[in-house]
Amino acid sequence: MTLYVERMGHLVAEHQMLLKDALLPNRIGIYCLLRIEFLIPWEAHLVRTIEWKDGLVVTLDQTKLPGEEVLIKLKNCGEVASAIREMRIRGAPLIGVAAAYGLALTAHHSKARYREELMDELEASADLLKKMRPTAVNLFWAVERVLKSARGSFAGVELLKRSVIEEAEKMADEDVETNRKIGEHGSKLVEDGDTFLTHCNAGRLATVDYGTALAVIQMAWKQGKRVKVIVDETRPLLQGARLTVYELIQDGIPVTLITDNMVGYVMSKGMVDKVIVGADRIVRDAVINKIGTYTVAVLASEHSIPFYVAAPLSTFDLTALSRDVAIEERSPEEVTHIQCHRIAPKDAWAFNPAFDITPLRYVGAIICEKGVIFPSEYGNSLESETLKRLGP
Amino acid sequence: MTLYVERMGHLVAEHQMLLKDALLPNRIGIYCLLRIEFLIPWEAHLVRTIEWKDGLVVTLDQTKLPGEEVLIKLKNCGEVASAIREMRIRGAPLIGVAAAYGLALTAHHSKARYREELMDELEASADLLKKMRPTAVNLFWAVERVLKSARGSFAGVELLKRSVIEEAEKMADEDVETNRKIGEHGSKLVEDGDTFLTHCNAGRLATVDYGTALAVIQMAWKQGKRVKVIVDETRPLLQGARLTVYELIQDGIPVTLITDNMVGYVMSKGMVDKVIVGADRIVRDAVINKIGTYTVAVLASEHSIPFYVAAPLSTFDLTALSRDVAIEERSPEEVTHIQCHRIAPKDAWAFNPAFDITPLRYVGAIICEKGVIFPSEYGNSLESETLKRLGP
Repeated sequence: MTLYVERMGHLVAEHQMLLKDALLPNRIGIYCLLRIEFLIPWEAHLVRTIEWKDGLVVTLDQTKLPGEEVLIKLKNCGEVASAIREMRIRGAPLIGVAAAYGLALTAHHSKARYREELMDELEASADLLKKMRPTAVNLFWAVERVLKSARGSFAGVELLKRSVIEEAEKMADEDVETNRKIGEHGSKLVEDGDTFLTHCNAGRLATVDYGTALAVIQMAWKQGKRVKVIVDETRPLLQGARLTVYELIQDGIPVTLITDNMVGYVMSKGMVDKVIVGADRIVRDAVINKIGTYTVAVLASEHSIPFYVAAPLSTFDLTALSRDVAIEERSPEEVTHIQCHRIAPKDAWAFNPAFDITPLRYVGAIICEKGVIFPSEYGNSLESETLKRLGP
Repeated sequence: MTLYVERMGHLVAEHQMLLKDALLPNRIGIYCLLRIEFLIPWEAHLVRTIEWKDGLVVTLDQTKLPGEEVLIKLKNCGEVASAIREMRIRGAPLIGVAAAYGLALTAHHSKARYREELMDELEASADLLKKMRPTAVNLFWAVERVLKSARGSFAGVELLKRSVIEEAEKMADEDVETNRKIGEHGSKLVEDGDTFLTHCNAGRLATVDYGTALAVIQMAWKQGKRVKVIVDETRPLLQGARLTVYELIQDGIPVTLITDNMVGYVMSKGMVDKVIVGADRIVRDAVINKIGTYTVAVLASEHSIPFYVAAPLSTFDLTALSRDVAIEERSPEEVTHIQCHRIAPKDAWAFNPAFDITPLRYVGAIICEKGVIFPSEYGNSLESETLKRLGP
């Protein structure tokens, strides 16, 4: 027997296990209902990866996936900031929208009586958020966008509160639409039978919905192209093994997990047709993305395998060069441990850069919501003029 | 205060902690002694990584390191074979000597009354051992060497038993001497201040003593060259994080642990001067070594960093080409799990090749017990003539 969970007429979950559980003879009704509440997956609660619900921001704790699907309900901007810092919320586009929602929480719960008082609170929240992850540009972009919109408004305090929340909601909606377009544009690069290799997670869990790199694969799959995906696990935090494999299994797309150091071997064996990854920041001369991306790009180049990057325009920072970007270093414990389990000797010292830098010469195409750009258009330096030529 | 633990006049352990512990006021003498027995490290039990002790083969369970130093006492060849299969014993040279000791156990405990009966038992043990790991050539080399020596003897059963054990002991002694020479030859390639990157574990834990790649680093360190080492963790079984970091910390050599996918980044940042690795098999056109070696080699080539391989001649198989070598595939669980802890979703499928193939064009020098060979001597094809030119 199957339980269908619907939300606004849209089927979001289907679980045979639940009714089987509920029908066990010795359990009383109320207990069964609790079990169902506990077991149904996040899709039954959330249509999107992050949602605004009456003064709460609700999202999945991504550090717990795939073992547990734990919803977190964030009550204020400080909780959003901590969730970003601890990577319970991760993925460049999702971090951006989460930051905007963080400011929305500040506005929603503010007791400010004057516009300036609220603006001070918003600026303080923005400062806090910006300290959480120094490399991902969407965080700065999102915070600045909300602040700019607030600063530009001359409304009273209550109207201003509402407009901050509306701006955050608008950004979430735009992210969904942007990623859908990235999927559409990118799917033109996918041929029937292609095996893609992807690194880290640039799926719907990294965004409000659809994903970036995975949106391309999912769109091609929906178009009937028989694609397969090889996912590297992406140490230290294993976003590939935990999140990308999880998403692809949910979508029914054939997926094989490998360790990061197998990338060279699978490429040398002709098992990879194309590589696609997301980005945390695209600067004039390089793509900055999760540590390991550069290693994959060099290997792709050595095997003449196209290496594609999919990212929304909010990830582009064309005023900067890679040398200007601070590469976040995280705790050595993320390397000496795997999910709280120590793997290295007690006195071991580890280096833990969270991102690396892939020069544009390794990049075979950049996919954004306005279309696909090729090396013939950007060469070794990507200029805003190139993006403008793609249209409004 | 310091406790010195000696074995046959040779200092094998020195622990300040032990006497401090023993001198705690509320403990009685017998308890202190027990504590000392419990705390002293494996060096106090074993001078070498593997030892023959009166019809037992004693070694460390390498799957338990560095968390626990567990000695295993193997009573027969089947137990040796299982330990090799389960990688409690690992490292190409160590596997070779362990296999020889496996045959020695068969001989030692044999109840055979006739020479032919014992030979049949040895052949059966050899067949079992050879099935354990298809790629590492030292296993085949060692088993064949013991069998050949036994076949060539016309001694009676008791003398033959003794000669098999002596051959295994001789091979263990030779391994120590071979690795010492590898260290000496290779140390000439090391300059003061060099930072080496190494992959997997090619240290004394991979051999009877000294190691291969790490022998080079350790010898240079003893010569007063200030070397540093970056170790990649080497998923899936984390030999880099667990074993190499452990050995280098014990030797007092500065060591930094990274994940496998950080190799490109640390090279791009100029943090690596040279790479050195071991080998599981060197064929005419390539070096076959732990999965991930090829990925490191391509990255070293891209950054013009010398890539060295250190291995004894017993690892060379110059009758074969890489296309002739079976690459062992191990259980997907080694990838979907880390030390029994599941990291990927339940339905995840994983690919788990244990080795990869590095064509000779990526190799900047091969160090063996007879000396160092450079690309000018082997080009893209290593011939036995080249080795012969190194001397007897």
